[in-house]
Order: sequence, then structure tokens, then C-alpha cells
Amino acid sequence: MNRMPELTIACPAWVDDIIDFDARYTDDESRMRVAITCARENVIRGTGGPFGAAVFDETDRLVAVGVNLVVPLHNSCLHAEIVAFMMAQARVASYTLQRDDLPAHELYTSCEPCAMCLGAVLWSGVRRVVWSALREDAGRIQFDEGPEFAASYDYLRARGIAFAGGVLRDEGRAVLELYRERGGPIYNA
Amino acid sequence: MNRMPELTIACPAWVDDIIDFDARYTDDESRMRVAITCARENVIRGTGGPFGAAVFDETDRLVAVGVNLVVPLHNSCLHAEIVAFMMAQARVASYTLQRDDLPAHELYTSCEPCAMCLGAVLWSGVRRVVWSALREDAGRIQFDEGPEFAASYDYLRARGIAFAGGVLRDEGRAVLELYRERGGPIYNA
Repeated sequence: MNRMPELTIACPAWVDDIIDFDARYTDDESRMRVAITCARENVIRGTGGPFGAAVFDETDRLVAVGVNLVVPLHNSCLHAEIVAFMMAQARVASYTLQRDDLPAHELYTSCEPCAMCLGAVLWSGVRRVVWSALREDAGRIQFDEGPEFAASYDYLRARGIAFAGGVLRDEGRAVLELYRERGGPIYNA
Repeated sequence: MNRMPELTIACPAWVDDIIDFDARYTDDESRMRVAITCARENVIRGTGGPFGAAVFDETDRLVAVGVNLVVPLHNSCLHAEIVAFMMAQARVASYTLQRDDLPAHELYTSCEPCAMCLGAVLWSGVRRVVWSALREDAGRIQFDEGPEFAASYDYLRARGIAFAGGVLRDEGRAVLELYRERGGPIYNA
């Protein structure tokens, strides 16, 4: 008997219905809208927590999206950023998005990454991380972000990774508020 | 057409052949031997990086193991600790191992957790983390551990999580050296 389960990780089916994978996304706002749309629809359709993420490459192509799947898949590791990294790496068949024969990749996420996801950024191979809602916005609905410090960002910057926060912040924050209004579980308070 | 792939995550088949899931593991050494055995066999059988982990509960039961699957599954997030958390949570069908109706859980890992895995510890619900080889042992074969600081551990301790390092350190370190001798890829140098 196989004692260790086989896990299947997939984005909800609605992702393919509402996200345009053929468009070109040429600026921070259009890219962030993809991440926030994923977050919002995940709340509205009840398929997970109020977080969404997307990976783009420097040709302006949307490589992958991710949504928070912690509660439905019984898996505390499946934050939106982690799912997006896994999907992007599967699509390019590489454990790093920073391979010489690949274009550069960037992560867009609807909320500032937690400590786990910030660590994952370093191994993912993305060269830039952009978020919408800030750590304090997540904290306002009692989501903890874990042990991350100014020095954490310095460590990643020293390895060539750039950061930008607060893009479309009002829209990102609105998804968190929507989740609270609907009584969604705060699973790491 | 489904644009996002469906991912399948499973431990190598040899895990079920060599790990005894029916034994009771009553002390740190016997538990750590499971994690180190997973790490060593992962190197010898060529199924991933030189890291293994295991989750036990306070009834001395082995709940799940994990091995590093980064290179074979093209997935930078699949460190041994992450795989072990995912498998353990799937087995108990809960996104946290700290639920009132569950016994307390502990993580044993063949090497000090990286920054991503330390963040994951916080969300996993384990109450104690024990490792064998130290951060400096991983560094000696050029594996980076990422942005973790004394304050990172303080943050988790303040939330009730205990830590112990260096259990069977020589055996854990030997697996890292074995990997280097065999020329295994250092994928996050």
C-alpha cells in the first residue's frame, strides 16, 4: 500500500474562463489587475483565500497565475505566490525562471508576500516582485505575514531582485475587505 | 484548453519500501534517522536533492515524510520540509496540524530549514522543529539558506514553536558530502 498520498494541485476551472492568456500585459497596472482579479474571483466563487498572483515574462506574456488554495486543498503551503511559481515553472519545465535561455520573469501579487513566499521568491528565479495591498492591510483583517524584516528584502535585493509595493492598493485592499465581510476563515491568525 | 497545468506531487516509490510507517518513534534520534534515511536514499537513487524530512505526532507515529523534489519535478518550492508538510496535512485532511482534535506534531529535517521552509513552519501547525546538519554545513557545499535571522526564530518561538539543531549532525552532514561527491546540482547557489 502506498502510505504517502499523491497530491494534485490545480487552479480552479474558472481561471481559464476569465483570464486572457493571449493578451500582452505591458505595464504594472494591467499585470496587477490579473493578480487582483484572481484574488477577487477566488473570494466570490468560494475557491480559497483572498489572494491572487501572476507571473509575467519580459515579452509581456502571462506565464501563469495562482490563487490561494490553503483551505480547499488542506495545504498551508499553497499561498497564491507559491501556486503561481509552481505553475510557471511547470509551464517552462524548469525549476528556476532565471535560466539563460529564458526571458526574465516577474511576480505580481495582490498582497505583500509573507515570510514563506518571500523565501520562495529567492529560489523561484523571478527578478522583480510587485504587490498591491500592503502587509498592514493584511494585518487589518488579522492575516499574519510572519517573520520578515527590512534585512529580508536587503538580502534579496543584494541578489538582484527588485521590489515595488502598493500598485492598485485600493483594489487589492478591497478584496481583503470583501473576504472579511463574507466571513472567510482567517486560517493563520 | 486548460492553460494552467495540473501538478502531481508524490514521494518516490522507494519511500514506501524502506520507511516503516508502523513503528513507533519515541526519541529524537530514531525520528531523525527517518529524515536522514530519506535524504540519503534520495541522493543514492537520484530522485532529488540531499534533503529529507519527516512529521511525527505525539503518539510517536510517523505521519509523513518528504524528500527534496526540486530538480525532478521542476519546482523550486518542493524542499523536503514543504513536501512533508503537504503530505502530513493531506493525511490528516487539515490545512493545519495544530487542530484541537489532533495530537501535537513535530518536524524532523536532515538540514536546518531555509527561509522559505522556516516561514512554512509557522503556517504548518507543527509545535517543534528539529534538524540535523546546520546552516553552515549546507553552506559548505554552496547551498544558500536565504534570509533568516535570529529574529526569525524569535518570532516563531513567541508563537510557541520550539527548535533544536544538530541531532545526529555527522550523519546529516555526511549526506550533503555524498551529494557533492556525486556531483549533484547546487540549484540555488
